[in-house]
Amino acid sequence: MTADILIRNVRPFGGEPTDLYIRDGWFAENPTQKPAIEIDGSGHIALPGLVEAHTHLDKTLVGMDWFENRVGPTRNDRILADRRAKQELGIDARRQSARQIMQTLAFGVMHIRSHVDVDTEIGIANIEGVIETRDRLKDLVDVQIVAFPQSGMLVREGTLALMEEALKAGADVVGGIDPASIDRDPVRHLDAIFALAERYQKPIDIHLHEPGDLGAFCLELILERTRALSLQGRVMVSHAYCLGMLDGQRQRSLIDALAAERIAVMTVGSPSAPALPLRILRQSGVVMASGSDGIQGTWEPWGNGDMLERAKYLAQRNGMTNDADLSDAANICTFGGAEGIGLTDYGLSAGCRGDLMLVKARTLAEAVALTPQNRTVIRRGRVVVRDGVMSEELRNVE
Amino acid sequence: MTADILIRNVRPFGGEPTDLYIRDGWFAENPTQKPAIEIDGSGHIALPGLVEAHTHLDKTLVGMDWFENRVGPTRNDRILADRRAKQELGIDARRQSARQIMQTLAFGVMHIRSHVDVDTEIGIANIEGVIETRDRLKDLVDVQIVAFPQSGMLVREGTLALMEEALKAGADVVGGIDPASIDRDPVRHLDAIFALAERYQKPIDIHLHEPGDLGAFCLELILERTRALSLQGRVMVSHAYCLGMLDGQRQRSLIDALAAERIAVMTVGSPSAPALPLRILRQSGVVMASGSDGIQGTWEPWGNGDMLERAKYLAQRNGMTNDADLSDAANICTFGGAEGIGLTDYGLSAGCRGDLMLVKARTLAEAVALTPQNRTVIRRGRVVVRDGVMSEELRNVE
Ligand SMILES: [Zn+2]
Ligand SMILES: [Zn+2]
Repeated sequence: MTADILIRNVRPFGGEPTDLYIRDGWFAENPTQKPAIEIDGSGHIALPGLVEAHTHLDKTLVGMDWFENRVGPTRNDRILADRRAKQELGIDARRQSARQIMQTLAFGVMHIRSHVDVDTEIGIANIEGVIETRDRLKDLVDVQIVAFPQSGMLVREGTLALMEEALKAGADVVGGIDPASIDRDPVRHLDAIFALAERYQKPIDIHLHEPGDLGAFCLELILERTRALSLQGRVMVSHAYCLGMLDGQRQRSLIDALAAERIAVMTVGSPSAPALPLRILRQSGVVMASGSDGIQGTWEPWGNGDMLERAKYLAQRNGMTNDADLSDAANICTFGGAEGIGLTDYGLSAGCRGDLMLVKARTLAEAVALTPQNRTVIRRGRVVVRDGVMSEELRNVE
Repeated sequence: MTADILIRNVRPFGGEPTDLYIRDGWFAENPTQKPAIEIDGSGHIALPGLVEAHTHLDKTLVGMDWFENRVGPTRNDRILADRRAKQELGIDARRQSARQIMQTLAFGVMHIRSHVDVDTEIGIANIEGVIETRDRLKDLVDVQIVAFPQSGMLVREGTLALMEEALKAGADVVGGIDPASIDRDPVRHLDAIFALAERYQKPIDIHLHEPGDLGAFCLELILERTRALSLQGRVMVSHAYCLGMLDGQRQRSLIDALAAERIAVMTVGSPSAPALPLRILRQSGVVMASGSDGIQGTWEPWGNGDMLERAKYLAQRNGMTNDADLSDAANICTFGGAEGIGLTDYGLSAGCRGDLMLVKARTLAEAVALTPQNRTVIRRGRVVVRDGVMSEELRNVE
């Protein structure tokens, strides 16, 4: 599994053809001796493992009965429906997380940050289920688990204690959600999760859907705490719709502050939510990551988890049609995500982890625009998917 | 080709399983005698031929070299780049239109309205090319050709005469574009195209990107002329972004007026343009159609022309996640489009044209959300695509 492998004739990021060499699971300088395995990359484009920086592995219904969605339009309708579905449909977080992981591995997704529900009804059962999957499939995919108070934290007595329990059980990141509109007390909500992060030395990832000036205020509170606790590079804000809803001056000063505190921003580029100013964010030096959010669940019926297609959606949402813009979008779904969730040794250079994906396209822009399938996926030097076909021993994993 | 065929065990629109029978190219009551051909529909969902109500068959680069897009962000940058590309890339409208048609036939698209450029540089060469394709492939797909003054009509002396020439040559619809912001004279632009439509007894289809109140004013001018010339049911407005940019009252009164004059509205649900209020439009009785706009061209690098996927995009742009909403979105890409472009005998009932598409899904909502491939496509009783495989004699058509 960690034998050395030479992948001939591939084009890193769509550039000139070259060979890539992986030894003991790490990219290395090309070998002087004949490697144990050689494969032909057919001139395909090589990218490092795609980064899914925001999903909900415990919520997908992939492989289950079709869920007839009759849910109302508000966020609260959806939270209630989601909690009911967890009970009535008996979603098995262990099995479902594995199903999603195996589905997206075929696209080349090898790094996943997943929010996982913690609440007073299911307790930390979903956390335990996804931890089991994380450990079982660690040779295939890196999974980070965010202890996520989907139904509210302060408003549901006992949730905070469960969050702490989740961290003790092995969750990797402290989650938060809408400190004002859901938890009704932005200061206490943020104080509580920043305190947890301090105590357990974990990063933070906050779902922030709060609109306009309310969202901006919550962002200010997050900035203040990040600065006070010196958590630069350890905080991500997911969605942050408010950044797409402010006047130019306010937007700019918040963006500059995010860059200064090295707070990463995750956007899925949702077509029905406010668009974040991607170009300004990137030019200002904010680390941008992206994700699929939930796929095929009670919230949204669609989604396949392909982070190369996600790059296309980011570009489309922002009206970015240039080749250079499409490459930028691909960067968000690779290096941006990697930095946002704190991966190290990421990339195709010697010394990086030996993970890569091959896709057939003439240019990186074409790969983003047309998202060809039938990819080849190599994990730590092991070919797990070849031209779209999952290797035999992995086909029944769930 | 027009032999009778019985398609067993299919579920029209996701409903109860039944058999569908096509005789001499038309749906008919189930036969009393054994039909010449029987095929097994495997319980798949049956939909009538998908309707592409707005594309640009003469602009796609499908099958050509990758076009490196360095075009600037404004509409004018894009119009100039588009005109330059037509010359430099030597886009062959006859060949390229056939390539797009064959690609989208595999998705089940059997009715296409295409805008085709008319300008003082290429004259009506593209119109002639697409007419050739339309006539050559008429057994596979219905194509309507809109004589489209992409580069402006009044502002480019001689274009109006070319539009008339295009109609004489066989174009089916009179096109128009941004009467104010491109042609700089909304009244004379609209008077000219409505006069052409009157003289040649053709319907009208106007690209209207004009924003906010300017767009609303142009819509009023279109409404007045439709009423004055009794062209109810013969006019389509494409994009109509202004409808997503007005205050509620102004929006409602315009929508009611569109319904009263039976002016259809085409939206692609673009994630980077203002969203049209789909629910209000439908509830108010406006005929809603959809399309892919250009696919894989100099304007936008992406797009595959799958009108079932387009239904998903419409739902996503409008935050419609309910099963009922997804069915509505599918309706826009079938019956809505059919009514919008004036098709008759459309549907799966006895007496309708024998065109249908089979897709494997449990419910219509799932078909929209996940847009499964490997469809079966039957045109006038002839199986042209079976489980995603184009019938042998059609594979090299271009
Ligand atoms: Zn989320
Ligand atoms: Zn168009």
